[in-house]
Amino acid sequence: MAQMIVPGNIRTTRTTLADRPALRVEPDNGPRAGTILYFHGGGWVFGSPETALPLTGHLVAKTGFGAYSLDYRLAPEHPFPAAIEDTLSAYRALLDRGEDPSTIAFAGDSAGGGLTVTTCLAARDAGLPLPAAIVAFSPGLDATRTGRSMDIKEGIDPIFTRKAVERTGAMYLAGADPHQPLLSPAVLADLTGFPPMLIQVGTNEILLDDSTRLAARARAAGVDVILDVTADVPHVFQSFAGVLDEADEALDRAALFLSQRIRARGAAHTSAR
Amino acid sequence: MAQMIVPGNIRTTRTTLADRPALRVEPDNGPRAGTILYFHGGGWVFGSPETALPLTGHLVAKTGFGAYSLDYRLAPEHPFPAAIEDTLSAYRALLDRGEDPSTIAFAGDSAGGGLTVTTCLAARDAGLPLPAAIVAFSPGLDATRTGRSMDIKEGIDPIFTRKAVERTGAMYLAGADPHQPLLSPAVLADLTGFPPMLIQVGTNEILLDDSTRLAARARAAGVDVILDVTADVPHVFQSFAGVLDEADEALDRAALFLSQRIRARGAAHTSAR
Repeated sequence: MAQMIVPGNIRTTRTTLADRPALRVEPDNGPRAGTILYFHGGGWVFGSPETALPLTGHLVAKTGFGAYSLDYRLAPEHPFPAAIEDTLSAYRALLDRGEDPSTIAFAGDSAGGGLTVTTCLAARDAGLPLPAAIVAFSPGLDATRTGRSMDIKEGIDPIFTRKAVERTGAMYLAGADPHQPLLSPAVLADLTGFPPMLIQVGTNEILLDDSTRLAARARAAGVDVILDVTADVPHVFQSFAGVLDEADEALDRAALFLSQRIRARGAAHTSAR
Repeated sequence: MAQMIVPGNIRTTRTTLADRPALRVEPDNGPRAGTILYFHGGGWVFGSPETALPLTGHLVAKTGFGAYSLDYRLAPEHPFPAAIEDTLSAYRALLDRGEDPSTIAFAGDSAGGGLTVTTCLAARDAGLPLPAAIVAFSPGLDATRTGRSMDIKEGIDPIFTRKAVERTGAMYLAGADPHQPLLSPAVLADLTGFPPMLIQVGTNEILLDDSTRLAARARAAGVDVILDVTADVPHVFQSFAGVLDEADEALDRAALFLSQRIRARGAAHTSAR
């Protein structure tokens, strides 16, 4: 595949959120009101805010919002539910410093796309107000691995095999029962009261039905949900923004969605910039 | 419900396409290259380009593209397949005058949303090149009426009942077998080779599963498809652009999609205006 590009018109600063390292990402001419809390991918085992910077950076550059990309704890050293504890603490830290939840969106890719949903479940369970929106790129949402795409896209998915996702998945599970909403929200979660969601995924992914089943659950719960499927692109193809047209176009749609959903206090309705 | 608004910054002209009346709709400062071929709603029995002008007009105003809104023949005087004959002839007329199919999108609402899909099927069957994109608002895509939403949304849908859609549907069918792709594409159509599709629908609609099943068929055929579902809005809520925020936001997403998909010859990549 092609290279990944970090856009030039952003600036990054190392910081912390609730005692975890985080990368602050802003447009270099300053952010507008509103915050993206970003969760990187890597199967709950790999990855960092830096590896996800092509994604976070383009979202920031395209929307004008600032982002925090969280360096949550990883398996196998820190299995489930460590990652969700960290992402929930980071969200709580934003609320504690006075940020209005209606100006916060969760976004993430792959395992981090899964965390956008499970962190929202955990926030609801903790009695916290929910964020304004969720954006998930090729999210991993089913530790039971029962999606039909797990079988019919095996050998078609250019990146993943069942064996590979089961290997990292087992490190994250560390023996936990996968039949629980925080591990398999596409199969088990009640999404009642969830904020509007945008899910982007490719037709060739073994994880495709993680997305299609979550979207069906969202519709059944009366939640706004956009299921945005692109043919013949690899897992988290949005990483190739600046190189692959489909990536830029998908991120432009995500930017418009975020701009429609994040409503800064006192700010007029704005379109995507 | 609220009133419908036709935007002020468009101009309309009566014209014909393949011997059928049509309404040409343009931005009043002139269109950019690219054409929306619009099919109005009304159960294949009612409606006209004028009744759909709030929709067509806002799409034109938001994209900058010009549109032709076709006054296709209606049942009961002209049952199936008269409407599709007319919409296909209109598309062929655009091609015959030299328009590049990659600069044409089909768009429509309700019954006209159904025609966006069935006209594309008919075009493929006729050996014509396919348009660049399809945008369907609350499309009617299943004359077999077998969607689960037909039952579970009965009494929840504020506009339609099964009885009402079956009454107008029977006029359009006029005894034809509903088990054919041109009448029930959500159940029977092979969408292989279709252009990217954007389907917008509300969670409360008895027609919801017309959309969800068509999107599933599109994904299975390897077609780009965005299934964009808004909670608690009525059938073709986009008609209330200028009044209802959800309508404007949905049409802004449709405008971005159209701008990404309609590629004028020699034109640079453009975002939604």
